[in-house]
Amino acid sequence: VGRAKKPYFKRVAVVGVGLIGGSLAIELRGSKMAGSICGVGRGLKNLKTAKRLGIIDEYTTDVLKGVADADLIVLAVPVSRTAGLVKAAANALKPGAIVTDVGSVKKAVVEACEPLMPEGVFFVGGHPIAGTEHSGAESAFAGLFKGRRTIITPTKKTSKGALKAVTQVWKAAGSEVVIMDAGTHDRVLAAVSHLPHMIAYTLVGAVADLGSVDNGEKIVKYSAGGFRDFTRIASSSPEMWREICELNGREIVSSLDYFMKKLSMLKADIKAKKFDRVQREFERAKNVRDSLKSGVKGWRK
Amino acid sequence: VGRAKKPYFKRVAVVGVGLIGGSLAIELRGSKMAGSICGVGRGLKNLKTAKRLGIIDEYTTDVLKGVADADLIVLAVPVSRTAGLVKAAANALKPGAIVTDVGSVKKAVVEACEPLMPEGVFFVGGHPIAGTEHSGAESAFAGLFKGRRTIITPTKKTSKGALKAVTQVWKAAGSEVVIMDAGTHDRVLAAVSHLPHMIAYTLVGAVADLGSVDNGEKIVKYSAGGFRDFTRIASSSPEMWREICELNGREIVSSLDYFMKKLSMLKADIKAKKFDRVQREFERAKNVRDSLKSGVKGWRK
Repeated sequence: VGRAKKPYFKRVAVVGVGLIGGSLAIELRGSKMAGSICGVGRGLKNLKTAKRLGIIDEYTTDVLKGVADADLIVLAVPVSRTAGLVKAAANALKPGAIVTDVGSVKKAVVEACEPLMPEGVFFVGGHPIAGTEHSGAESAFAGLFKGRRTIITPTKKTSKGALKAVTQVWKAAGSEVVIMDAGTHDRVLAAVSHLPHMIAYTLVGAVADLGSVDNGEKIVKYSAGGFRDFTRIASSSPEMWREICELNGREIVSSLDYFMKKLSMLKADIKAKKFDRVQREFERAKNVRDSLKSGVKGWRK
Repeated sequence: VGRAKKPYFKRVAVVGVGLIGGSLAIELRGSKMAGSICGVGRGLKNLKTAKRLGIIDEYTTDVLKGVADADLIVLAVPVSRTAGLVKAAANALKPGAIVTDVGSVKKAVVEACEPLMPEGVFFVGGHPIAGTEHSGAESAFAGLFKGRRTIITPTKKTSKGALKAVTQVWKAAGSEVVIMDAGTHDRVLAAVSHLPHMIAYTLVGAVADLGSVDNGEKIVKYSAGGFRDFTRIASSSPEMWREICELNGREIVSSLDYFMKKLSMLKADIKAKKFDRVQREFERAKNVRDSLKSGVKGWRK
């Protein structure tokens, strides 16, 4: 993985040329870190779009063909498919290759993938905390990762060279890189991302359960802008979030437990009319939330 | 309250010339429903601003003076202050006057205010489901209520004339008027507004409790755009939300109970690895949420 400062990958395979995979391909090309980029996917239509848009140089629906001779393999597929793909492709990987992913869950993925690596090939888990509601190659764009954090989760087995190479890839994409063990990543993401999604889906379901008021109109229709902002994430892909629950269930359950404990305390305070305490909790939360408004990298613009 | 179609109020008193009171004053003037508008408040600075902006014709910090001779009195003050103001001003109200409010809680307010009305004066509770993060007279603007719902909560004692007049006021402001009893209003708003605020404050508090990761950085800083949208309402006024908890505690506790029951069911499903059920719940919520995206009146733009 050549040169002193910037790694150079003669051939890169991007498996899953969607919003994340496609945007990273654009950055790899723009930063001249990739010689040629091969897109790998199941659907020809998306791959053709990616080629037409100049995101990739060539494409194939054959994973083995796509990863053979690749120096860097980026797996940008739903988290549930990552380990299966690695298993299928492991023997086709060339010595010295680096495999990385972009999934929202790291421990299960890294633990499944790392042992599958042939001698001299490294799997390095990664997770760019970035995204939009859109998907597919045509939604990819330069700058998606700019100012956002990417968490990289090496293990004791990860070579320094592989870690450095993956770090450079994300830095070249404009991202701030944070190194973390996979378990910590999953605990942090359970709190700041997975838990909010569980809450949003459940809240929308709870309000839908309430049914209608006398005029026959659904109660949920009385919601205003605050509710819309609050529940926007309940429009996320149910399939993707089911997979995240499957792969990070323990941390999600633990964050749900803690959240419900706090919500029970608030409820008890309201019932006991301890409104000074209620207000203090609100004030503390407001201060924390207000502190996020500016100066935080990784925000959606 | 003259004319056949449109009521005409010779004198209107707006107590609290902030975002809501000020914007309603603008609409009353624009629709020619008010002869003159007197702003009533505690702070001279805000009242002077309101006059300078042409929102009100005159102002006073003396409530009794402000409401005397008014045909319509709009109480646009924090919900906790409404009943006290009505009590203080009741004897100064002129026969035939109509008193209305704009608060987020209706049962406690209506039950406290209605019995205080002198003979021939009516209190009609109202709640425009509209707002922005801003406050004060300079944040008032024409169009705030356009396309939003306003809920009006008459009782058995409310005269048809008073109900009609208040309905016309909000229709003139561009709002869609929905008539509901105060208890139903509080149950509906507990679900679509009060519960989400309780959740948002508690979620931000829970994530803040988690502290920092190894690099010393707070876990909450790893949140991305979804979390920011999700918790924006945790930046709302702690004082106002404490008051809403005080006045609508029973419904808020009941909505918290239902929400927590559903969240416990989700947790149990994740623990029991019943992921098909988890996904079905997510799908149902997504469908409901997606249905809110378009065609719903009352959304913040």
